[in-house]
Amino acid sequence: MIDPWSISTTSHDGDRENLLRRGNVFQIANGYMGYRGTLDEFEAGQGVGIMLAGLYDQAGDAWREPVNAPNGGFTQVSIDGVALSALGNKVRRHRQTVHFRNALFERETEFAARGKKLVLRSERFLSADIPNLGVIRLTLRCEKAATIRILTGIDFEIWDLNGPHLPELTAVRRGNAILVQGLTSENSRRVCVAEALGNAGAASDKVLQKDRKILRSVTFRAQPGQSYVFEKFFAVVTGNDAVAGSVDAAAAKMVLAAADAGYDECLRRHDAHWSRKWSRCDVTIDGDKEAQQALRYSLLQLLMAAPVNGSANSIPARALSGQVYKGAVFWDTEMFMFPFFLRTIPETAAELLRYRIRTLDGARRKAATEGAGYSGAFYAWESQESGDDACSYFNIGDPITGRKLRTYFRDKQVHISGDIAIAMWEYFRVTGDPSILLEGGAEVILECARFYFSYAYFKKEKGRYEILDVVGPDEYHERVNNNAFTNMVARETFIIADKLVGYLRHSHPKALRALLGKLRISRELARFREAARLLFVPKPDRRSGVIEQFEGYLRLREATPAKLLAARAHLNEYPGATQGLAVPTQVIKQADVVMMLHLFRSRFPESIKRANWEYYEPRTEHGSSLSACAYALVAIEFGNLDVAYDYFLRTAKIDIEAKYKVYVGTIFTGGSHPAANGGAWMTAVLGFGGVSDDGPRLSIRPRLPARWNRLEFPLAHRGGIFRVAISGSTVTLTAAPDNRRTLVVQVSGKPVRCPPGKSVIVNHGKNTPALAAR
Amino acid sequence: MIDPWSISTTSHDGDRENLLRRGNVFQIANGYMGYRGTLDEFEAGQGVGIMLAGLYDQAGDAWREPVNAPNGGFTQVSIDGVALSALGNKVRRHRQTVHFRNALFERETEFAARGKKLVLRSERFLSADIPNLGVIRLTLRCEKAATIRILTGIDFEIWDLNGPHLPELTAVRRGNAILVQGLTSENSRRVCVAEALGNAGAASDKVLQKDRKILRSVTFRAQPGQSYVFEKFFAVVTGNDAVAGSVDAAAAKMVLAAADAGYDECLRRHDAHWSRKWSRCDVTIDGDKEAQQALRYSLLQLLMAAPVNGSANSIPARALSGQVYKGAVFWDTEMFMFPFFLRTIPETAAELLRYRIRTLDGARRKAATEGAGYSGAFYAWESQESGDDACSYFNIGDPITGRKLRTYFRDKQVHISGDIAIAMWEYFRVTGDPSILLEGGAEVILECARFYFSYAYFKKEKGRYEILDVVGPDEYHERVNNNAFTNMVARETFIIADKLVGYLRHSHPKALRALLGKLRISRELARFREAARLLFVPKPDRRSGVIEQFEGYLRLREATPAKLLAARAHLNEYPGATQGLAVPTQVIKQADVVMMLHLFRSRFPESIKRANWEYYEPRTEHGSSLSACAYALVAIEFGNLDVAYDYFLRTAKIDIEAKYKVYVGTIFTGGSHPAANGGAWMTAVLGFGGVSDDGPRLSIRPRLPARWNRLEFPLAHRGGIFRVAISGSTVTLTAAPDNRRTLVVQVSGKPVRCPPGKSVIVNHGKNTPALAAR
Repeated sequence: MIDPWSISTTSHDGDRENLLRRGNVFQIANGYMGYRGTLDEFEAGQGVGIMLAGLYDQAGDAWREPVNAPNGGFTQVSIDGVALSALGNKVRRHRQTVHFRNALFERETEFAARGKKLVLRSERFLSADIPNLGVIRLTLRCEKAATIRILTGIDFEIWDLNGPHLPELTAVRRGNAILVQGLTSENSRRVCVAEALGNAGAASDKVLQKDRKILRSVTFRAQPGQSYVFEKFFAVVTGNDAVAGSVDAAAAKMVLAAADAGYDECLRRHDAHWSRKWSRCDVTIDGDKEAQQALRYSLLQLLMAAPVNGSANSIPARALSGQVYKGAVFWDTEMFMFPFFLRTIPETAAELLRYRIRTLDGARRKAATEGAGYSGAFYAWESQESGDDACSYFNIGDPITGRKLRTYFRDKQVHISGDIAIAMWEYFRVTGDPSILLEGGAEVILECARFYFSYAYFKKEKGRYEILDVVGPDEYHERVNNNAFTNMVARETFIIADKLVGYLRHSHPKALRALLGKLRISRELARFREAARLLFVPKPDRRSGVIEQFEGYLRLREATPAKLLAARAHLNEYPGATQGLAVPTQVIKQADVVMMLHLFRSRFPESIKRANWEYYEPRTEHGSSLSACAYALVAIEFGNLDVAYDYFLRTAKIDIEAKYKVYVGTIFTGGSHPAANGGAWMTAVLGFGGVSDDGPRLSIRPRLPARWNRLEFPLAHRGGIFRVAISGSTVTLTAAPDNRRTLVVQVSGKPVRCPPGKSVIVNHGKNTPALAAR
Repeated sequence: MIDPWSISTTSHDGDRENLLRRGNVFQIANGYMGYRGTLDEFEAGQGVGIMLAGLYDQAGDAWREPVNAPNGGFTQVSIDGVALSALGNKVRRHRQTVHFRNALFERETEFAARGKKLVLRSERFLSADIPNLGVIRLTLRCEKAATIRILTGIDFEIWDLNGPHLPELTAVRRGNAILVQGLTSENSRRVCVAEALGNAGAASDKVLQKDRKILRSVTFRAQPGQSYVFEKFFAVVTGNDAVAGSVDAAAAKMVLAAADAGYDECLRRHDAHWSRKWSRCDVTIDGDKEAQQALRYSLLQLLMAAPVNGSANSIPARALSGQVYKGAVFWDTEMFMFPFFLRTIPETAAELLRYRIRTLDGARRKAATEGAGYSGAFYAWESQESGDDACSYFNIGDPITGRKLRTYFRDKQVHISGDIAIAMWEYFRVTGDPSILLEGGAEVILECARFYFSYAYFKKEKGRYEILDVVGPDEYHERVNNNAFTNMVARETFIIADKLVGYLRHSHPKALRALLGKLRISRELARFREAARLLFVPKPDRRSGVIEQFEGYLRLREATPAKLLAARAHLNEYPGATQGLAVPTQVIKQADVVMMLHLFRSRFPESIKRANWEYYEPRTEHGSSLSACAYALVAIEFGNLDVAYDYFLRTAKIDIEAKYKVYVGTIFTGGSHPAANGGAWMTAVLGFGGVSDDGPRLSIRPRLPARWNRLEFPLAHRGGIFRVAISGSTVTLTAAPDNRRTLVVQVSGKPVRCPPGKSVIVNHGKNTPALAAR
């Protein structure tokens, strides 16, 4: 039985990989922090982690990564002196669940020890109302009378990939609260965790410290069949938070207030937030429970990882599931997650953009110091809090030689700046709201254009600009010239810069003058226009329609991913990095030209999409989780819905199935894949739902997979909110009552008007004309 | 005792490396072929090789390489039924010698077997008169009467590195000659070796075939103390030779004619040629026998490798000593050997240039097919007979993984074209003779300029052309931008193209019109002028004077060659090739900026030369034999004569000492180093002799090492020949009687006139003013 609103498991084995995998799948998060899906009694050794968003630290020369907080959720229960753990042999049954509706983790375990049974149930959530807050309720019930001891408090033995980040932690009791606090090793940023129990009486508990834990000890005689409920609250506050007074005082105050309010009240406030979230974005699929569950789980991941309003944080490549990939923000956010937020919860999309505005200076520093020294903004390939690049020049280990390989991710993957500029402009285009542009987005766009101009070279013989020496999305081919994706993105940046200046000149002339003055960029605008006109972009071959991924790609040796990987001398051998097995071949890591055809889908005819999909698909290893959704989306465009559906499921199920490797060599790489989660949404709504707004107006051209009876989703567009319900033959559009304008939508080519508060039903025919032809 | 005119050894051990080393050191050659320094009785297993210049073959997928001919010099002597070999234990004494005066190889070995002594002496030379011809004289003498059997003929078991190149050879007797012939495997080019004995009587010899040898058997009873002399002649003729009639008939005719003339007459004609050669180029050093011998040996190597007049061949990187490096011609020729010939025997310099004219179409093909497809002429990095590139994209094996490494020697070492263009123009400038330009040299120059223009990019922001993505002389850093050496060479090519057009317009307007028409290049000439003006060349740092080798070099990690090599995981690990140990460091393989300072020595002040020499010298591994002479030459320029002398000896002694490795992994790399030989001449004459003609007139500014009393050498300049004798305080200039013009030379800054047939003595002071300051 597939539950469309939850995922559960009864597994509780202690295999390290399984532990880590469950830690990923059952994690919860609230944008401020992520709590891995571990159990109350687990410790660092079992991969407990409370990762903090936007707080990074470097210990020695190791990789900089996010800080994990001390675990304020720790509880160890004993019965008649026997400590109980789900990993031991005392478990009779176990079930753990994540509830999608409110990102609530629940576990229920029946233990048996000394001939007595005890059922431990706990529920925990990270408050969507007060993001510093974690809330837990433990319920205990014994069949026979027994002596129960609960050790609960803060475990400050922290699991880090490259720690320790909080080298000296101190624990104290302060009134009803206990506190653990310390400073990060690099920047001495203070981190404090406070914990309190509810139900009063806690003041009299005995508090003890051992094994890097500060614990309350509560012992009582449990009566048969009686349930004992404990409420537990923890708050994490750091020097990054704008709190009145000290960090520790703030943390203590928060937990005590929460304990006062009680679990139920905290949950009520939390649920109210979640209910609003889902109303803005939930997608329902009738007739396909597997897809429904996987897609909703994907959306849950995105909602949980979404930055706290006002934080100007973004979403790391592994979201808040752990320190993997340095907790860094990649192009994943703008290209794969941003579209979801933009069309459902635009204020979160804006927050993601604010992160890039906030880190613009870092991007300027990077531009000035990479290579020959460039102008403008070259965004970090792996971005942390300052926008300086966390990506190292030797970013991959070679298991054969034990040496680090020089990779050019950091210095040559220049499409990142354009990806961001495109997102900035998309926000304005889709929402109609210029605020992000005026807040700094316009500056970002101009600085990105400036960067590309300083990166580009002019080829006099051919009368064109070229973008040389880059790494495109396919990271197996480094240092290539005129990568189609990169050049398209760079050209688009110039085009957008020009449109932006035109718009500002017309609508915000004063802001424009100030900006041009600040950047001293007026004289460069004509260059950007020229570059927009003369920047070379590889064209489809006249006969085959194939767009060459980069100069010389088509002359590389033919090979298939399977054969290539079979030739590896070591299972974890990396096929790229200038001397790898894939480098002299046409095998690519992930969608590259096909990603471009998705990103610029209104610019290419169906025949070109098909030709390139068919050319590149058998050459693609899908060695990145970003790949499958691009292949799904483009396959939909040319009408191959069956194969698109397969790729959709691959994308949508990546985290719920968690079949990915959690270790590559000695490096832990598991965690959630928010880009794939965003890809699942894109495939469902933009792909099968057929939503696009590349033209002058919003367009819906549904192409549902055969097994889907109905697809329904809300859409934010130009400040209004709409529901779209697609069945086999009709599209029902419903405009929210407080929309300010009538929406005009093209439904399968026909214009349809949808005034505020109204519903319209349109017949779209089973197939669109384009599909009917096949 | 060092003999300034010969080198000898008494070693005759059978150690494989020593055998190969002696084969290199004692080789002789005559431009048509090279005969390795092996003994009469040696076979393929001992590294016998008669390498043919300009005839290449590829067996299967192996490397293309020069063809080795069957050995027409084979002789096996037996005494009383015991076969004698210098490798056996029957040797009482042995000595082998190469005589520099006439490139004559001599061996004398005293054997003892069955209680009897036999002295075998042989002399052999490859005729400088008839280049197809090899001439041998064997002399035998026994102390006691003994039965001597001589097996002599052609051994056609051939030692090849990547053979077989003559898979099916047939042997026949034809009259007094025996012949072995066959076809090359790739192009069915015929190769024939004929052999004949002198002294008549040979017709009655028994001829037998065994073990891939065709042999005459001569048996006689030797009387005590009596010398028996045998003369033996062989001729190699191939399908490359312009001979009347068939190749085999021509070969047979040649050996019979030579046998008729006899050894002494053949030697007399040979010696006459050699005497002329030495009169044109010999350098005498008084007071330093070690330097004298090493330098003269170096010159011998160059003279032996010099192409036959009219062949339009060039000199491979290992000359004619063997098939190493595919027998390919590198930049070594133009940059390190050409200057010697240009200033001593200009007709040979012209021949070297004709080779590049002959292979221009190959360079055009390479330009059109490499990378994005370029215009003009991109010369082969490893050039064979057609000018197509013999260098592979995976040119180095990795001993750690057993895989081939991608190297960019072939596609990115673009300085090769400019090196050639510079040599073309130098020939005209130094000789005053435009014939090479008119024969095709002008076309080469324009096509090289065209290539660079199509390779260069314009950086609009900076208003300059740049040369991106190259490998400079330092091959440890591949795919770099704006390599100082490369950019200087490219800019010089544009400058030369412009001067060339100016010169032709004035002096050969019809030829210019025809050339411009043929190349359809008229519209491009303005571009070349613009590029000459606007091509960026890295400037010396204002404070340190250091010229950055390429963009970003100075930001690489500091390291020393010794420490770097100590970190190797395998002794033969290559430090370059994009992931090698040297790549992220400042350790360089060979002179790069310093080579540029030598090549363009009139453009940089002494202070810059010193600053860069001092910066780069401790960072240079000298992993190439081309490196030491550049460091010697530049050290002389700024007056550090002691260290220059050390580098000079390193260069001059490389082949006579033969301490180089003869194997790298499984690949044989030993052989002579004609570039270093040329470097020795450059250091002696251009360096210590202080000869330069970069300015309006020839200049001599001597800077002799302390131990040299006197340095004397001939010089060809503007069609005249001069002798220059430098002592501690004077320069004596002597003009050949048939010079047509009075030479005006700047001697240490003072103009001196030297009319035909006259001598002038000039006081140059012990030190030049520049040196006096130190």
